[in-house]
Amino acid sequence: MNEQESFAFGAEAGVPTRKASRRSPKKKKTRKTAAKRGGGAGRAPRARQSASELASKQRDISVSEFFAKNRHLLGFDNPSKALLTTVKEGVDNSLDACEEAGILPEIRVEIAQVDETRFRIAIEDNGPGIVKAQVPKIFGRLLYGSKFHRLRQSRGQQGIGISAAGMYGLLTTGKPVVITTRTGAKQDAHHFELVIDTQKNEPRVKVDKTVSWPRDHGTRVEIELEGNYRGGQHSVDNYIRQISLANPHAEITYVPPKAEEHGAEHIFPRVSDELPPDTDEIKPHPYGVELGVLMQMFRDTRSRNVRGCLVSDFSRVSGRIADEICKRAKVSNSRRPKEVTREEAEALHKAIAATKIMAPPTDCIAPIGNDLIGKALRAEVEAEFYASATRKPAVYRGNPFLIEVGLAYGGGLSADDAITLYRYANRVPLQYQQGACAVFKAVTGTDWKKYQMQQPRGALPVGPMLLMVHIASVWVPFTSESKEAIAQYPEIIKEIRLGLQECGRQVATHIRKKRRVADEAKKRAYIEKYIPQVAVGLQQILGFPDRERDKVVGNLTDVLERSRKM
Amino acid sequence: MNEQESFAFGAEAGVPTRKASRRSPKKKKTRKTAAKRGGGAGRAPRARQSASELASKQRDISVSEFFAKNRHLLGFDNPSKALLTTVKEGVDNSLDACEEAGILPEIRVEIAQVDETRFRIAIEDNGPGIVKAQVPKIFGRLLYGSKFHRLRQSRGQQGIGISAAGMYGLLTTGKPVVITTRTGAKQDAHHFELVIDTQKNEPRVKVDKTVSWPRDHGTRVEIELEGNYRGGQHSVDNYIRQISLANPHAEITYVPPKAEEHGAEHIFPRVSDELPPDTDEIKPHPYGVELGVLMQMFRDTRSRNVRGCLVSDFSRVSGRIADEICKRAKVSNSRRPKEVTREEAEALHKAIAATKIMAPPTDCIAPIGNDLIGKALRAEVEAEFYASATRKPAVYRGNPFLIEVGLAYGGGLSADDAITLYRYANRVPLQYQQGACAVFKAVTGTDWKKYQMQQPRGALPVGPMLLMVHIASVWVPFTSESKEAIAQYPEIIKEIRLGLQECGRQVATHIRKKRRVADEAKKRAYIEKYIPQVAVGLQQILGFPDRERDKVVGNLTDVLERSRKM
Repeated sequence: MNEQESFAFGAEAGVPTRKASRRSPKKKKTRKTAAKRGGGAGRAPRARQSASELASKQRDISVSEFFAKNRHLLGFDNPSKALLTTVKEGVDNSLDACEEAGILPEIRVEIAQVDETRFRIAIEDNGPGIVKAQVPKIFGRLLYGSKFHRLRQSRGQQGIGISAAGMYGLLTTGKPVVITTRTGAKQDAHHFELVIDTQKNEPRVKVDKTVSWPRDHGTRVEIELEGNYRGGQHSVDNYIRQISLANPHAEITYVPPKAEEHGAEHIFPRVSDELPPDTDEIKPHPYGVELGVLMQMFRDTRSRNVRGCLVSDFSRVSGRIADEICKRAKVSNSRRPKEVTREEAEALHKAIAATKIMAPPTDCIAPIGNDLIGKALRAEVEAEFYASATRKPAVYRGNPFLIEVGLAYGGGLSADDAITLYRYANRVPLQYQQGACAVFKAVTGTDWKKYQMQQPRGALPVGPMLLMVHIASVWVPFTSESKEAIAQYPEIIKEIRLGLQECGRQVATHIRKKRRVADEAKKRAYIEKYIPQVAVGLQQILGFPDRERDKVVGNLTDVLERSRKM
Repeated sequence: MNEQESFAFGAEAGVPTRKASRRSPKKKKTRKTAAKRGGGAGRAPRARQSASELASKQRDISVSEFFAKNRHLLGFDNPSKALLTTVKEGVDNSLDACEEAGILPEIRVEIAQVDETRFRIAIEDNGPGIVKAQVPKIFGRLLYGSKFHRLRQSRGQQGIGISAAGMYGLLTTGKPVVITTRTGAKQDAHHFELVIDTQKNEPRVKVDKTVSWPRDHGTRVEIELEGNYRGGQHSVDNYIRQISLANPHAEITYVPPKAEEHGAEHIFPRVSDELPPDTDEIKPHPYGVELGVLMQMFRDTRSRNVRGCLVSDFSRVSGRIADEICKRAKVSNSRRPKEVTREEAEALHKAIAATKIMAPPTDCIAPIGNDLIGKALRAEVEAEFYASATRKPAVYRGNPFLIEVGLAYGGGLSADDAITLYRYANRVPLQYQQGACAVFKAVTGTDWKKYQMQQPRGALPVGPMLLMVHIASVWVPFTSESKEAIAQYPEIIKEIRLGLQECGRQVATHIRKKRRVADEAKKRAYIEKYIPQVAVGLQQILGFPDRERDKVVGNLTDVLERSRKM
């Protein structure tokens, strides 16, 4: 079979395509400004391009062409990161699917080394499976998914990740994505092999057949790619350990390359049999809605008047509040939404900001919880002190979010280096771009000297500490499509800082106590050392016998112990 | 007029749209795994969603919806950055258009404050103008443009920027983008008012008329938006100054808000009447082409055999080189490209990597040049020493690029703080995300102690220095669509480092010399101080008269001056 027939690529790295393959011929015009034209360095004089010549080159760019050329935006900067990103996207999807279906996740991650620079990655889950008709678009089309048009906490949100991983695999190895999926014991298991046509951002199915598969339900995705498997902070091993920490309800089996060398399968068992609490999809909160969006909502609403639209299309707007907003805006509450002008919408928008409205509902957010954070930290690191804080939900741009902070101090942790910082967003560990992240900004912006820690200006504090910060939200604002860092919204930074301060105060109390204990011990050691000398001195002055002297030592020690209860 | 009729918004901030407005009703099924399901925290038991329920929610996401919701990816994180980004996108487009048309740019930037948080930004140029039919798509459609599908140095490359600025204006103020453009004295000037329909990523034209306009040719864009005008490192003022530095052939007139307070118009005159040398569009270099792209090129080529395709579709591949590649790959050079299999393509891809091929042509890159960098630095800062280095072009992923470094040391620069770092890409200053940038990485990764500078570990060196680093390339790999930082490709970091070292050695020589001079002066001062004492001592020992003593002082000073010529 000629595999090449089965896919098409865009103009990656500027490959000229038919439409744009030839420059228009250079016209040499004489023109008043000709003397001013550049040239320099012995090059041919510049050919002026007219507006119509420039116009002839304008054309559409497909979103997959765009991301193929800018693949570093999606986390495919280099071979080791590409490998990690592919695993992450697969595992995110598997965990989301299992949780939405109410299934305790069992995830299997396999990495097989094909040759020196090529790996075959498989991610398999016991999730609900995927309906046959949806498979091609989910894996062969960027910007397609169920999570973008809703406000609900999940790991995925963009409809890009797994298709992009498949696109990267295709780009570097020419191999298709292989999907096996089954939606129930009575259903057939389907086997797909497909590629993305980057010029059109459409899937091309190469193989579509039913197969026998041992699982009753679930999905397995296989992608072959140019990659690099390595250890350290950004390693897949580290990622698997961190994701297991933040998802104690998931059982993860990890088969690294050369399993014989690395000790075959690693199983990260489930430590909790409870799924995270179910979270609801919510309506937008009025505080976070911008004027343009408000106008669009009036246009699209099913309500027959402005009051009804405000009540039914937003969260936390009662009839009374809606009336208050209308009154303040001097817009009739019975006005037909479709007839609201830009000016009226602007008045309503300002009135919303001026009206006191309850914060958005919070059952749309599922924190990990203080208990599990504590457990996770104790499992991760042997320290002498642990603290955690779960903040109340807050709001940025109308989106509820919640910050959790966990902290381990002392014990086996190194005292001479900067602290270790673990960042999580909706239970997904973030391993890259720490410096660009709101979490880093909040941690470095906190005055840790207050909390008895050393801290170089503008840097992470130094000391035996591991910090874990988790943001849970219906929409996490990442700084890039590769979802590596959280955008620095002031509301988010503030909440993180408050969480850090809560934990900081606890650790400061511990450090002060520890220091006091150490000081006491030091003083006590000094005094104990000198008590016999004092007794001898007294003996010489008063001339009492050795027996009496020993008694004085005993008495003085008694006094010391009573006055300095420790 | 009801302006609201004229545009449509996507599901920004999760606004439910008709398609996705209702959750499917929760079905309560009894199932074996029911006991395992989550719940916790007193919430209602989880409703299992089947694969088909999940499938019903899958849908397309338009690229404008995506970027409206993720607008921070495009540089619209907050009001002050949004204002700056809008100015940048407008100026980038104007400079590119002028240069492509061979016109010395005259750019006018106006910022008018409408109310406390609202600004109206206008960018006007003397460029070639835009053909009427192209105006709506250029300003009302994301991912549309002439610069993506080519390898040629320009400021814009994505076809997103100006449409995104218009989208942000619409979102925050409901106002359309206003465009006036004219392609020649004999042509009508056209006036457009248009908005983007984010659900469809299509322009909607509200006003389209001919107007009278004093310019013969050029374009004026006006966008009203929620913004914030402020000073400091990230200010528009700073940006205008920096862009003028790197574009000495452009005349920029800047009218800040409240021009009466800020001193009306600022004119940054042209300091060079030469346009930057014209740069050519190039074909991809074989080293940077990935397997998937190579396969696509074989599919699309007009050549009738593999040899012809390699020679005509790539740069730097002669017939001899093509034959060498085919021979090494064991693929016949007369094979029809469309019949090349994946396996053969892979063999050819490996053969390319193993074959010595000349670096890509370099006339596709226009450096600023040592002279102009020196001039720019002297204009920017009064220092005691200047150095600059223009590296030879190098290649990352097949794309030629070139690094320039400029440096000013001493004089009025502060000696106690970290150095000032200016970053440029294709003559555009980068003002955000310094920490994520390849330039920052290269500067902090250089050992400045070697060059007589202080440097905290992993940080910028400390001292009286201004560093300017410019990358020029046919395709600059930015870390985000907002084009704020350069991706950390090892080849790029290496070239920057070599440029820094070149300048570093020069500045080290200067600093050492300066230090030696200072030491000499100190020693000399000491000796001069003691010469009279020595003379007096000699007078006392030898008993000669005062006249003789003064002569000894004169002689000794003579000797000193002769032996320690400074």
